[in-house]
Amino acid sequence: MVIDYFLSTLMSTLGCRPYYTQQFRTERDTFGELQVPSDRYWGVQTQRSLQNFDISGPTERLPPLIKAFGILKKAASIVNVGYGLNPKIGDAIQQAADDVISGKLNDHFPLVVFQTGSGTQINMNVNETAPRSISNRAIESLGGELGSKKPVHPNDHVNMSQSSNDTFPTAMHIAAVTEIHRSLVPALSELRDALDAKSQAFEHIIKIGRTHLQDATPLTLGQEFSGYVQQISNGIERVKAVIPRLSLLAQGGTAVGTGLNTKKGFDVKVAEGISKLTGLEFKTAPNKFEALAAHDALVEAHGALNVLACSFMKIANDIRYRFWSQMWTRRAEPGSSIMPGKVNPTQCEALTMVATQVMGNQTTLNMFRPVIIKNVLQSIRLLADGARSFTQNCVVGIQANESRIKSLLNESLILATILNSHLQ
Amino acid sequence: MVIDYFLSTLMSTLGCRPYYTQQFRTERDTFGELQVPSDRYWGVQTQRSLQNFDISGPTERLPPLIKAFGILKKAASIVNVGYGLNPKIGDAIQQAADDVISGKLNDHFPLVVFQTGSGTQINMNVNETAPRSISNRAIESLGGELGSKKPVHPNDHVNMSQSSNDTFPTAMHIAAVTEIHRSLVPALSELRDALDAKSQAFEHIIKIGRTHLQDATPLTLGQEFSGYVQQISNGIERVKAVIPRLSLLAQGGTAVGTGLNTKKGFDVKVAEGISKLTGLEFKTAPNKFEALAAHDALVEAHGALNVLACSFMKIANDIRYRFWSQMWTRRAEPGSSIMPGKVNPTQCEALTMVATQVMGNQTTLNMFRPVIIKNVLQSIRLLADGARSFTQNCVVGIQANESRIKSLLNESLILATILNSHLQ
Amino acid sequence: MVIDYFLSTLMSTLGCRPYYTQQFRTERDTFGELQVPSDRYWGVQTQRSLQNFDISGPTERLPPLIKAFGILKKAASIVNVGYGLNPKIGDAIQQAADDVISGKLNDHFPLVVFQTGSGTQINMNVNETAPRSISNRAIESLGGELGSKKPVHPNDHVNMSQSSNDTFPTAMHIAAVTEIHRSLVPALSELRDALDAKSQAFEHIIKIGRTHLQDATPLTLGQEFSGYVQQISNGIERVKAVIPRLSLLAQGGTAVGTGLNTKKGFDVKVAEGISKLTGLEFKTAPNKFEALAAHDALVEAHGALNVLACSFMKIANDIRYRFWSQMWTRRAEPGSSIMPGKVNPTQCEALTMVATQVMGNQTTLNMFRPVIIKNVLQSIRLLADGARSFTQNCVVGIQANESRIKSLLNESLILATILNSHLQ
Amino acid sequence: MVIDYFLSTLMSTLGCRPYYTQQFRTERDTFGELQVPSDRYWGVQTQRSLQNFDISGPTERLPPLIKAFGILKKAASIVNVGYGLNPKIGDAIQQAADDVISGKLNDHFPLVVFQTGSGTQINMNVNETAPRSISNRAIESLGGELGSKKPVHPNDHVNMSQSSNDTFPTAMHIAAVTEIHRSLVPALSELRDALDAKSQAFEHIIKIGRTHLQDATPLTLGQEFSGYVQQISNGIERVKAVIPRLSLLAQGGTAVGTGLNTKKGFDVKVAEGISKLTGLEFKTAPNKFEALAAHDALVEAHGALNVLACSFMKIANDIRYRFWSQMWTRRAEPGSSIMPGKVNPTQCEALTMVATQVMGNQTTLNMFRPVIIKNVLQSIRLLADGARSFTQNCVVGIQANESRIKSLLNESLILATILNSHLQ
Repeated sequence: MVIDYFLSTLMSTLGCRPYYTQQFRTERDTFGELQVPSDRYWGVQTQRSLQNFDISGPTERLPPLIKAFGILKKAASIVNVGYGLNPKIGDAIQQAADDVISGKLNDHFPLVVFQTGSGTQINMNVNETAPRSISNRAIESLGGELGSKKPVHPNDHVNMSQSSNDTFPTAMHIAAVTEIHRSLVPALSELRDALDAKSQAFEHIIKIGRTHLQDATPLTLGQEFSGYVQQISNGIERVKAVIPRLSLLAQGGTAVGTGLNTKKGFDVKVAEGISKLTGLEFKTAPNKFEALAAHDALVEAHGALNVLACSFMKIANDIRYRFWSQMWTRRAEPGSSIMPGKVNPTQCEALTMVATQVMGNQTTLNMFRPVIIKNVLQSIRLLADGARSFTQNCVVGIQANESRIKSLLNESLILATILNSHLQ
Repeated sequence: MVIDYFLSTLMSTLGCRPYYTQQFRTERDTFGELQVPSDRYWGVQTQRSLQNFDISGPTERLPPLIKAFGILKKAASIVNVGYGLNPKIGDAIQQAADDVISGKLNDHFPLVVFQTGSGTQINMNVNETAPRSISNRAIESLGGELGSKKPVHPNDHVNMSQSSNDTFPTAMHIAAVTEIHRSLVPALSELRDALDAKSQAFEHIIKIGRTHLQDATPLTLGQEFSGYVQQISNGIERVKAVIPRLSLLAQGGTAVGTGLNTKKGFDVKVAEGISKLTGLEFKTAPNKFEALAAHDALVEAHGALNVLACSFMKIANDIRYRFWSQMWTRRAEPGSSIMPGKVNPTQCEALTMVATQVMGNQTTLNMFRPVIIKNVLQSIRLLADGARSFTQNCVVGIQANESRIKSLLNESLILATILNSHLQ
Repeated sequence: MVIDYFLSTLMSTLGCRPYYTQQFRTERDTFGELQVPSDRYWGVQTQRSLQNFDISGPTERLPPLIKAFGILKKAASIVNVGYGLNPKIGDAIQQAADDVISGKLNDHFPLVVFQTGSGTQINMNVNETAPRSISNRAIESLGGELGSKKPVHPNDHVNMSQSSNDTFPTAMHIAAVTEIHRSLVPALSELRDALDAKSQAFEHIIKIGRTHLQDATPLTLGQEFSGYVQQISNGIERVKAVIPRLSLLAQGGTAVGTGLNTKKGFDVKVAEGISKLTGLEFKTAPNKFEALAAHDALVEAHGALNVLACSFMKIANDIRYRFWSQMWTRRAEPGSSIMPGKVNPTQCEALTMVATQVMGNQTTLNMFRPVIIKNVLQSIRLLADGARSFTQNCVVGIQANESRIKSLLNESLILATILNSHLQ
Repeated sequence: MVIDYFLSTLMSTLGCRPYYTQQFRTERDTFGELQVPSDRYWGVQTQRSLQNFDISGPTERLPPLIKAFGILKKAASIVNVGYGLNPKIGDAIQQAADDVISGKLNDHFPLVVFQTGSGTQINMNVNETAPRSISNRAIESLGGELGSKKPVHPNDHVNMSQSSNDTFPTAMHIAAVTEIHRSLVPALSELRDALDAKSQAFEHIIKIGRTHLQDATPLTLGQEFSGYVQQISNGIERVKAVIPRLSLLAQGGTAVGTGLNTKKGFDVKVAEGISKLTGLEFKTAPNKFEALAAHDALVEAHGALNVLACSFMKIANDIRYRFWSQMWTRRAEPGSSIMPGKVNPTQCEALTMVATQVMGNQTTLNMFRPVIIKNVLQSIRLLADGARSFTQNCVVGIQANESRIKSLLNESLILATILNSHLQ
C-alpha cells in the first residue's frame, strides 16, 4: 500500500493523470455511494470534486492556501469552544489543524484550482480531512468510530459558524499576508542590502552614462546602483502599504455577508485569534458584504507585485546589457559547449522571466477566487525566490570591469568630439 | 489662412493625414532647412518630429501633459530668475507658460505619443513654441525679432537648467497627480455618495441573496449597496495612497541624474514652485537616478486605477444582471426599434467597457514613457468620466422593483423546499 | 455659424468637453423633446447618446467604422430596392451613403466608443444622419420636408431589414478587412522589401553573432536581416490567413440571428453587394447565431496583429541595441541639446512603443463590441503607420559600420582565446 | 535509498524545497567538483542549474517538453549514424531516448522554467541523463564505465551536430504540435459533438432571445446551441491553421542559424525522422535565422488558443447565467451545506477560470523561450482538460427546463405589451 501511494505520488508528479491505490472504502452521501482511497483522509465531497474537475494536475494545487485554512480552522475552533463547542472536540480539531499547518497532511488535499469558482470544495476538503485525521490518531480518547462522522463532524464542528463564502476569502488573505511577510519581504531586503553594498563599493568608478542606449554624460557606477537600491526600497514600502487592507478578514459574514448562523462577536474574535497564531496583525473587515463579494484587496496587492516585476525587469536588463562590457559576476555555469569561455548573464535572464510571468499573472485577476489566489501566490513565490537567487548568484559577486569602463568613457569623449566636428 | 487652419484641424479631427496651410516659413538648424507652417509657433525640431513620426494622428496627442509642461516651465523660469536669468525674459516665459497652461496654445503642440521613447521632442516643442508665442505677442517690449531666437532662446532660456530626461518624467508626474485630484477623486466621491444614498434608501428591502448566480440566503438591498460604497471608498483611499510617491519629481537630475548643468537647490525650489502653482504638494525625489531611470510610481498609480476598474466591473455587472428583475433606472434612450418598450442597462455596459479598457491599459506600462503616460492619463479620464456618467445617468435614478423582489424571495423559499424534497 | 462649428471642432480637438453652436432645433420622440444643434444632421437618438455618454471625447470616435457603415447601408439599400423599396428613396440613401463613405459627413458622427455595449447608437446615428443629409441636398426632388422624417425614414428605409445586432458586427468586419487590405498589408510589404534590399546589400559583411547578448559564432549581417524578412513575410501571410473568417458577415441575422423581419436571400445579396463596392471578397456567415453572439474572428485577427507586434519588437530592439556599434541610419533629428552629435535610434523606439500598445490592446478583447473594434482598428493603424515610418525613416537609410563590425569580430576572436586559457 | 527518493518526490510534490537522498557521488568539470545525488542520472551541469536557480519548484517543470526532447534526440541520433556515428552508440542513445519519451526518466529532469533564458540547461540535462541511463542498463554490452562519459558522451554523441540554440526551439515546436494533436483537438471535437447533439435535441424549443441581458425576439434553444457548435468548429479550424508554421523546425541552425558544425542535409533528415516518429508532418524551417531568433509561430499558436478561451468564456457564461431558469444538468456535487438542494453551475465556473488563465498566459509571450513554452503548454492542457470536463460533466447532461422556458416566453410577450402601453 505504501508502494501504491508512492507510485501514485510519483506518477502525479510526472504530470500523469491521478493514480490511486487499489484499496478503497465506500462512502455515501445524499448523492449516493462513492469509492474513496482508503489511505486518504478526504471524504466523499472531495472525491466528487476530484472526479468532476480532472483539469490539469498536482501542479495546480495550492499548499500555502491549505496552510492558511489550517490557521483559520484552528482559530475558529478556539472561538467556538468559547461559544459552547465541546472542548474535547475543539481540542481535537485544533490538533488536526496543527497538522494541516505543518504541511504533514498536504497529500490529503488533492484539489486543483480549476473547480467551483468560489473554492467551496477546498473548504469542504479541510472540513472532511480534519475529522478523519483526528479519528485516525485519537480515536479511542474520543470514543469515535473510524469512517463515521462521529464524534467530530465536518459541517457541524469543523465548519461551525462558517461558510465557504467567508472562509475562502479569509484564507486567501491569510495566505497572501503570511507569504509576503515570511518570504517576500526578507528576500527583497536581502536584495536591497546587496545592491546597496555594491552601490557603495562602486562609489568612485566614473563611467559614461547612456540614454537611448547611446552615450550621454558621465556618472558613477555607484550612483547607478543607488537608483536600484531606491527602486527596491520603494518596492518594499509598496508591498507593506497594501497590508492594512489585505489583513481585513471576511470571516463572520457567512453565506452572503449578513453573518447568519454565526454568533455576535465571532468575527472580531476569530481575527484576533488568527493574529495571535500568525504573529501578524489581522482585523475583521468593517463591511462583510464588500469583503465577501469583492477581491479588490488582492488585486491591489498584485498591483504592488507588478511594480516589483517592473523594477526587476529594469534592473536585470540594465545589468544584462552591460554584462562583460562594464561588469561581471562569478561564473556559475558554462555558457556554451562550443565556446568554453563564454559566460552568460543567466541570473538576469531568470529574473526577467520571473518578471514576465508576474506581469502576465496581473491580467488574470478579474473574476474567480481560486484563479486569483493561485496567481497572487505564484507571483509572491516567484518574486521572492527570484530575488534570492539573483542576490546570491549574481549581485553579491558583481565586480566592475574598471579598465573597460575607463576605456569606454575615453572612447565616448573622443567620439563625441569627432562627431560634433564631423556631422554638423 | 484662418480657413486653412480650420480645414487642417477639421481634417485631422476626422482622422485624415495631417494637412497644413499652404503658407510656410523656412527655418534652419544644423540639419538644414525645413518648411514650417507660418501660422504655427513650433520650430524646426518639432517639425522634424512631425514629419518623421507620422504615426496615427491627433487622437494620440496628450493635452494634459502639455499643461503639466506649462506648469513646469513656469516654475522653472521663476527659479531661474532667482539664479540670474534676466527678469524680463523670465517674465515673458512665465506669460507664455500661462498660455500653455490655459490650453490656448494646444494647437501648437501637434506631436503624438509614438515618437522618441524619452519624449524629448515634446519638451523641445514646448521650448520652441513658448518663445514664438511671446514674440508674437510682446515682440516690441522685449526688442525681439520675429522668427529669430532672440531675445528668448528655446534651449538657453526656456529649457535653462533642464533636460528632456528630467522634464518629461516631471511633467508626467504633475499631469497624473493633477488629473487624479482635479478629475478622478471628485467623480469617485460623487459616485460613492450616490451609492450611499441608495444603500440607505434600500435599507429595509429584503431580497434573496445569490451565490454562483443561484439563490442563497436573504439580505437587504441596502446591504448589497453598502458593499459597493465600501469598494469605492477603498478605491479613493487607494488612489490617494499612491500620491506620496507620485508627487516626487525628477526635476533637477538633468541628463542622467547627476544634476550636471543645474544649480544646487534648483530641484527643491522647482518642486516648491510647482506646489504653489498647483495647490498640491510636490517634493523633489530623494534619488534622481531612480527618478529618471524608473517609472515605477506611475505603474503603481495605474495599479490603483486597475483596482478601480475591477470594482467598476463588479458593481456594473451586478446591477446589469439584476436589471428589471430587481431594480431599474430612468429610461435614458430607446432600447430597440423593433421593441419600443425595451430598456437596456446601457450605463452599466459603458462602465464595464471603461473597466475593460483600463485593465488593458495596465499591460502597456513596462517600457517607454510616452506610452506609459498616454495610458495612465487615458485611464484616469475614462474612470472619471465613466464614474460621473454612471452616477448621473444610472445610480441616482435607481428604483427598487419591490414587488418583483418580494415575489423572487418567496419563489426562492418555496423552490428551496421543493428541491430539497424532490432532488435528494 | 460656420465659425461656431469651427470653434467646436477646435475645442473638441483640444480635448475640451464638447462645444456646440448656440443655434438649436427642437426634435422629439417618445421620450420627449430635445435640442439638437441646427448645423448637425444627427437626430434625437444620437443627441441622447451624446448627452448620456459624456465619456472621453473626440479621440474615442471611430471614422473607419463609420465608413464601413456607409458601405453597408449602400449595399443594403441596393438590395432593398430589389425587394420593393421605392427606387427614388433607395437612390437617395445610396447617395447619402456615398457621402458617409467619402468622409464628408464625419463631423455628423459624434458618438464615442464608451456607450451601449452593442453599439446600437452608432447604427442609429447613421440611420438618422443619412435622411437629413439627403433632405438637405435633394429635398425638392423627393418632395420632402426639412426636419421631418419624410420621405426617407431612419428606421423604415435606412435601417430596412436590418437591426443594430447585425449591422454593427457587419460593419466591424468590413472596417477591419478593408483597413488590413488598404493600409496594413501594403505597409508591411514595403517594410519587407526594404529589409530584403538590406539583407542583400549586407550579404558579405561577416560579423560576430551573439546569444544571451554575448559573443557567439560569426554570421553575415545579411543573414541576420534575412531572418527579419522572413518574420515580416510570415506576418503578412498570418494577417491574410484570418481574412476568410473575418470576411464572413452577420448581416441578415437581425435581432437574435433568426433573420426575423428580413427577406430570404437578403444576407447573401448584401454580402455580394459589399464585395462589389469594396472590391474585396465578403460572404454571408453560415451560422448567424454565432456571427451575432461571438466576436471570435476579430479576436483571431488581433492575434495576428499581436504576432506582428512581437516581430516588430524583436527587429526594432535588435537594431536599437546595435545602433552605432554595428550600423546607423540617416540622422533624422538632433539627439540632445547638450551633446549635439548624439543620434538616437528613435524610429526603433517609436516602433517598440507601437508594439507595446498593440500587445496591450490584445487584452481588451473579451467583451463588448465597441471596445473590440476600437482596439482592433487602432492596432491596425499603429502597425501600418509604424511600419511605414520605420521603413522610410530608418530601414532604407541603414548603413553598416563595416570597420567597427570588423574590429568587434577580431576582438571577439582574441577575447575568446584569452578567456579560454585564462578562466579554465 | 528508494525510500529517500520517494520522500524527496513526496516533499517536492508538496511544494517543499527540493530534498535529496543523503548519498551523493562527486562529479567534476572545468568549474570544479560538485555533489550529485547518486540515484539520479543527471550530471554536473544539471546539478549546477538546480542549485543556481532555486526558483519555485517541481510545479515549474515541463514534462511534455522533455518528451519532445526525447523525440528529437532519437531522430538526431538516427541521422547521425547515417553520417558516421558508431551504430552501437547510436542505438544506445535511441534506447535512452525511448525511455525519455515514455516518461520513465521524468524524475531525472528536475530543472524548472526560470533559468537560462535560452533553456540551454534543459538541453544539457537531456545530454547528461541519456548516457547514464544507457550505462546503468547496458554497460557491459558497450564496455563502458559507470560514472564516466564513456562510451557515450553528452556533447560528442547525444548533442552531436546540435546546439541548445536549435534544439530548444525545435523541442518547443514538437511539444506544442503533439499536444495540440494528441490532447486538444480530440477534446474540442468531443465538445463540439456534444453541443451539436444538444442543438438537435433542442431544435423545437422556442424561447425568448435576449440582447443586453434583456428580453428580445424569440428563437429556438437549438439555434442558440448551433452558435456554440460553430464557435468550437471554428476554434478547431483555427488551431489547425497554425500547424503549418508551428511544424517548421529550427534544427540544423546550430548556434546562430548558419548551421556551423552540422552536416549538409542534417536539417531536412532530422525533420523527416521526427515526422516518422510522431506520425505528424514536420518540415525544416526555410530560414534558420528566423527560426532561431524569433518565436512568432508560438505566439501565433497561442493566439488561436486565446480565441478558444474567448469562445469558452462566452459559452460557459451563457449557460451559467441561464442555469435553472432555462436548463440544468445532472447534479454533480452538493451546492451548499446550508441549502442542501442548491446546485451551482460549477463546471461553467471551472471553464471560465480556465479561460481567464489562458487569456492571462497570452500576455507572457514576448520574451524568453522557457516562459513561452511553459505558458503555451499550460494553455493547451487547461483548454483540453477543461473542454473534456465540461463536456462530460455538464454538456452531455443538459436538460431544457421546458415549462420554465415557456412561461418566460409568455411573460416576456405580455410584459412587452404592458411596457409599450405604459412607458411611452
